[in-house]
Amino acid sequence: MKKFEEKTIQSEKIYDGKVVHLQVDDVTLPNGKTSKREIIKHPGAVAIIPITKDNKIIFVEQYRKPLEKSLVEIPAGKLEHGEGPETTAIRELEEETGYTTNELKFVASFYTSPGFADELMHIYISDKLEPLNEKIEGDEDEFLELLELTLEEAKQYVKENRIHDAKTNYAILYLETLEMM
Amino acid sequence: MKKFEEKTIQSEKIYDGKVVHLQVDDVTLPNGKTSKREIIKHPGAVAIIPITKDNKIIFVEQYRKPLEKSLVEIPAGKLEHGEGPETTAIRELEEETGYTTNELKFVASFYTSPGFADELMHIYISDKLEPLNEKIEGDEDEFLELLELTLEEAKQYVKENRIHDAKTNYAILYLETLEMM
Repeated sequence: MKKFEEKTIQSEKIYDGKVVHLQVDDVTLPNGKTSKREIIKHPGAVAIIPITKDNKIIFVEQYRKPLEKSLVEIPAGKLEHGEGPETTAIRELEEETGYTTNELKFVASFYTSPGFADELMHIYISDKLEPLNEKIEGDEDEFLELLELTLEEAKQYVKENRIHDAKTNYAILYLETLEMM
Repeated sequence: MKKFEEKTIQSEKIYDGKVVHLQVDDVTLPNGKTSKREIIKHPGAVAIIPITKDNKIIFVEQYRKPLEKSLVEIPAGKLEHGEGPETTAIRELEEETGYTTNELKFVASFYTSPGFADELMHIYISDKLEPLNEKIEGDEDEFLELLELTLEEAKQYVKENRIHDAKTNYAILYLETLEMM
């Protein structure tokens, strides 16, 4: 859908980073006037809801520098160049939890913040986890702690804002709908 | 929670825009090594799920330049300086839909993309809408079309990826849980 399309007059690259790329576009609005759009380009991300044999959810706790605090989240990571989202889901599961799977189910996808960023988040779930024989090393600047929580415990973490990000809050609500069915 | 805290060595301001502010921090990791963190500072945002008397949901369709397409979303906007989230919710409702309310219920809040941005999204719901006598002008560079959809219609929009952003997908799932109860 191209309703109210904004045509690019020119695009200025501001920053080309490891994760984010910032550009500022001059655009023509539907009424003919011009405006500026600040745009973050992001490779996209994948998250997975890992369910253990005893029906617990595996989370990772990690420090989030933009917030200056740690959050409890479902395992997730950026899409590497050329990688399909299912491959990323399994890679992040392996790197962050020590489990693998060959059975993923698609849950949802959404843009995390479409006003200023093009990051698309894909969420999968798996309740067919197998422990890896050998630990796989993840990113060297990533420090994680694993937690296994029941859905009731996870809902308590939401109340306490220890779980407090879009993909994980969505995942908890999704698991609640499964319980209701 | 400060688990795995990353201490800032220095912070470089890269860009100071209308919506986004980009900085790159040099940090000390828990193992003593150093790394860089690219951080988007954002004022935070508020969204509202407006429910009409005949139980339809009011959405806005607008062009999202970062995606180069339009999306159907619940009304939302940035927190203005010093404004509480409930005030923003009512202001955005008035500007974008022509309704107002004096009865809001908190639904959820979450960081949209905690890996690189500090944007916190607050979501409210109201089924006590009153039409405004006079139209209030919103942002002059914002072009919107209003849609009123049943929950079933909205779920179809999710399937077609016309509804495809974190706050709106969360809102649809939330309304589904209300229907299940």
